[in-house]
Order: sequence, then structure tokens, then C-alpha cells
Amino acid sequence: MKEIAEILGVSTGTVSKGLNGANDISEELRKKIIDTAIAVGYTTKKMRNKVNSTLCVFVENVDYHTTNQFGYELIMGFKQAALRNDFNVEIVNCSLAIQEKESYDAYMIRRGFRGAFFIGFRLNDPWINDLNKTTIPTVILDNLQPENPNVASIGTDNTQALRSAIEHLSNLGHTRIGFLNGDSDSMISIYRTEAFEKACKQFDIVLFEGQIQYTRFATEDVQTFVERFHALELTAIMCSSDQLALAAIDACHHLALHVPDDLSIIGFDDLPISAHITPALTTINQDRSNLGRIAFSSLDSLMQQIPISQTLLRPSLVIRDSVSSLKDC
Amino acid sequence: MKEIAEILGVSTGTVSKGLNGANDISEELRKKIIDTAIAVGYTTKKMRNKVNSTLCVFVENVDYHTTNQFGYELIMGFKQAALRNDFNVEIVNCSLAIQEKESYDAYMIRRGFRGAFFIGFRLNDPWINDLNKTTIPTVILDNLQPENPNVASIGTDNTQALRSAIEHLSNLGHTRIGFLNGDSDSMISIYRTEAFEKACKQFDIVLFEGQIQYTRFATEDVQTFVERFHALELTAIMCSSDQLALAAIDACHHLALHVPDDLSIIGFDDLPISAHITPALTTINQDRSNLGRIAFSSLDSLMQQIPISQTLLRPSLVIRDSVSSLKDC
Repeated sequence: MKEIAEILGVSTGTVSKGLNGANDISEELRKKIIDTAIAVGYTTKKMRNKVNSTLCVFVENVDYHTTNQFGYELIMGFKQAALRNDFNVEIVNCSLAIQEKESYDAYMIRRGFRGAFFIGFRLNDPWINDLNKTTIPTVILDNLQPENPNVASIGTDNTQALRSAIEHLSNLGHTRIGFLNGDSDSMISIYRTEAFEKACKQFDIVLFEGQIQYTRFATEDVQTFVERFHALELTAIMCSSDQLALAAIDACHHLALHVPDDLSIIGFDDLPISAHITPALTTINQDRSNLGRIAFSSLDSLMQQIPISQTLLRPSLVIRDSVSSLKDC
Repeated sequence: MKEIAEILGVSTGTVSKGLNGANDISEELRKKIIDTAIAVGYTTKKMRNKVNSTLCVFVENVDYHTTNQFGYELIMGFKQAALRNDFNVEIVNCSLAIQEKESYDAYMIRRGFRGAFFIGFRLNDPWINDLNKTTIPTVILDNLQPENPNVASIGTDNTQALRSAIEHLSNLGHTRIGFLNGDSDSMISIYRTEAFEKACKQFDIVLFEGQIQYTRFATEDVQTFVERFHALELTAIMCSSDQLALAAIDACHHLALHVPDDLSIIGFDDLPISAHITPALTTINQDRSNLGRIAFSSLDSLMQQIPISQTLLRPSLVIRDSVSSLKDC
């Protein structure tokens, strides 16, 4: 309670009131206190008793343990929204072993989970196939949408995201732009390739052979691709994650290329660390905490038999120092 | 209260408990009682006093006064969700005169409305332009999405809708299919043309000149288009609303064409009347009541500064008698 009080700059008495639902503090402050309690891992008996059922977050290929990792705020936002609505949340690292042992529905029903949120799955994961027929309300991040009214997808609006990045590069005179994309086995990479090509057409950026490269993220790969992009006389690389952008900047250092003078780089995600590297990364912000919240509200709709198919959140371009202007050169 | 009791088959005492928030009835029954009260136009002092602010539904080009009209359940679903969350709702017929008199923001601020839901606007409506810069949380049905974090769009998933209709026709042997679309000044018509062409490609349906016709809905137009489609030797017409489908069936009667033997017809919306005409209309169901609910929940997200860009609801194909099989002929 003391920790919560310090974070919010209020007294422990106020925290206690917030956690116990007293009437003499504002609704807004009460929500803040509960959100903070969840963030620091504190739950009261009252919060636990109110829980009517448990939702499950399945995570694969995504890190979420520290604030600098993509999944951290995403899962926090989901948990906060769920607990506000009296649902408990369990996080499960969903290895292939778990998926192969039993079907998704069997796993959920045997454990009494009411619904789930999938993060980071690949197209060839066994449970992704199970989603075509599942009867369990399920929300997936950045993935395909099987024609099943029990499944909804959420994500950031890729069309708007890539358009704003390419528009920014185009305004600064870049016309030869490469795209360092993620794993080709992920639906999100396919969506972003479509959005990249659409944006290039819109701003008269030439499309050419070798312009889009996919990687499951290995440092050696990134260095090879950056060399290849440089050989193609590109002036800018759009990356489909901040992690890839950071690796690309690192590759540039090894190749004695200056960022942004020799090569401009744009990321995607806006992880906390990206503001603090040199050069500070220009990137597309994904509001991960609100993505977590809309994942919960979409799941809540599915649990109420409202067959949502997709909800998209707006991105925003954060302009820092990793893109140079080619104008007046 | 008696009316509510009769509709729900409970006692007036139970209704009174539901309206007054008594603890000895279930949460589910309480919600049903409140929803029914709203549907019959009954509000208690308690409901009115709890209201924290008022939302506005602006309607143009859409009828909503009787259950057979497109807007009826849509507005009802929105109102029910809003009142459950202690918002009042006003419905405004948004004529061009209103829009030309003052800007959208000025109208909203002067009247103290907290947010709005737009239904049936055309692309050239003055207030649609105002949405590019508005500071008012606003949700639009089936319309474009300006890059403004205060505006979100909702609608039925057109890609899935047209795919399921074209798949159904294709499975029954139809290969020459026309599309009778709505007003070419509406974003929704543009989206549905894209979805129609995408679905045709997917099921190897030929695309040809004159296949897609737009109409602001005039009976003479529909008859002309049906004649033209028939002259093109089409076997089926996909219509972008039940209203158009009903007019097309009527035009067939005038032209002595039998539906579905000479021409198959599919609608879009699934208005109540469509089940009761002859032949009963095969159509794509839009769940209007849930569309109204997600309009409210999207608006609620915007009011909480969660910048949703789009939420889509799943359609479902309702198979009745207006499509014939060309197999085994």
C-alpha cells in the first residue's frame, strides 16, 4: 500500500479507501489506485473475491517481463481492464509442447478458462488452426481472422502506420526505401508488406526487386540485409519493429555507415529504450497499453455474443533523430 | 411498468425492483428490464438523475421510426448501451440546413453534447469535412476514417459479407453476377465495390463492363438496371441493401421475369420484412442492434482517450428462397 501511495503521491489512507471502494474519493482516483495496485502486483481479498471467472493470455515469441519489452504494457493494459471488470487473468507461455499435447478447446474447458487473448503466434502454430472451429471467445493480436464468430482480432492500423512513415520519408526527399520486415510466417508481416506497398504507390516511391526482406530476427541476418540495402543505393530503411531498427543501427556502426547521414532508419513500436539510444529512433508508436485494453473490451464483446471481427487502434509517428533530410543537398 | 412486465413475462413488482436497482433480482434480469424500459420509452427519475452527459445521434438519409426500417434497431442498440452506462441520448435529423448553419464542433459545444454517432452521411456533407479536425469524440457508421484520433468508424465486415454471398452463388453454379450498389457518393458503396470485386476474383467470377451499377434508390432506376442486367445475360444480382433487392424483385415482376428461376437476387441487411415477401429474400444479415452497441462502446473508448480507428462486426448469410441452383440443369 505504501508503494502505491508513493507512486501516486497520495496518503496510504487514500489508497486504502480506493482499494475498499469508499465513496469519498473520486471514481477516477479509485481507478488509478486499482490500476497501480495491479501494476505492483498487490491484490486485496475483496478484489479476489469479486472475480467471476478467469481469462488466459497465451504468449509466444514475445517478451513481456521488463518495461522495455513489447509485451509488458500490452499485458498490463489487458490485466487492468480485466480486473476492473472483475475477471482474473493468467499468463501462459504457450510452447509448441503445450499446443501439441491437447487441442485449444480441451485445454480451456478442462481448466475452466472463460476466454483468451493470443499474443505472438505464428501461422503454423497448431492452436491457430484450432481457432477456425473454437467455441471459446478468443482475441488474437495482429493475426488472421478465421470466419468464426467466437474469434476477433485486434491490432494497430498498419495502413495508417506505414503511410505516415513513408509520407515522412517522402517529404524529406527519400525515394529509395527498403523494408526490413519480420518473420514471413506471421500474418502481421504480410499485412505490413501490403501496407508498405500501398504507401509507396501513394507517394510515388519506386518498388523494386530486393526491397522487402523478411527475418526471424538474427543479428547476422540484419547485417547482411543492411549491406544489401546499402548496395542497392537505398537512402532509408523502414523496419517493422524497434528491435530490428536497433539491430540495423548496430549493423550500420559495424559497416561504418552513419545513421542518419548515410542511411535513415525508422522503427515500429516505440519501445521505451528507443528514445534513449544514439541516434534517438524515429518510430511508429503502438499504444500497447491501450491495445491491451481493447483486447479485453473485444473479448468482453465476444463473451456477450457480440461477434466483433476486428478492432484497430491508431498509430502515431514519433519523429526523433534517425532520419535525415535529403532536401537542399 | 405494466407493459414492461407483460413483454418480459414477469410481475410489475419485479419490474419496479429492476428499475430501482434492488439487490434481490439477477444482474441479467435487471439489464433486460432496463433495456425494455428504454425500448418502450419509459425512464425513471433515478435513470434521468444518474445521467452524466448527453450523446447525440445524427441521422441523415436513413429511416428509423418503425421496426422494418434500417435505423430502428441500430439506434435502439446504441441507446440501450448508452443508458446502461448512464449517458442520455438525443436523436437529431441532420439536414443540410443544420450543417450549413454552423460547424459541427460549434453545434456540439454550444449544446454541451459529449460525443456523437453519425448515421447515413454522404461524402459531400459539410460535417463530414469537419471530422478531419474535430475535437469531439465521434463514431461514424460505414464511412471514411479521417486521420483524427477523435473519430472512429464502425460497420459490418464487407469483405466477409460479399465473400459469403458470392461463394453461395458460385456454389450454386452462378458465374455471371451483377452488383446493384447504392449511392456512388457514399463511402460504403466504394467499400462494397472493392469487396465485390475481391470476392469475384476469389471465386473465378468474370468481371465485365456494366456489371456494377450505382443508384441513389429510385424505382425507375432499379427497373432500368434490372433490364440492363437481364440483357447482359446475368443469372444473379447482388444488391447492396434489402430495399434495393425488394425493388429489384418488384422490377422482375413488371418485366415478367421469375425470381429465382430467371434471375436470382441476394439482399444486404436482413430487414424484418425480407423474411415475409415472396420469394423470401436470401440476404446478408447485419446485426443492427449489436452495431448500435459497438457504436456506443467505440465512442466510450474515444471518450476515454483510447484512439480506436475502426471496429467491424461479422455478417451472416441468411439463405431463403430468392436464389436458384443452376447445377443439374
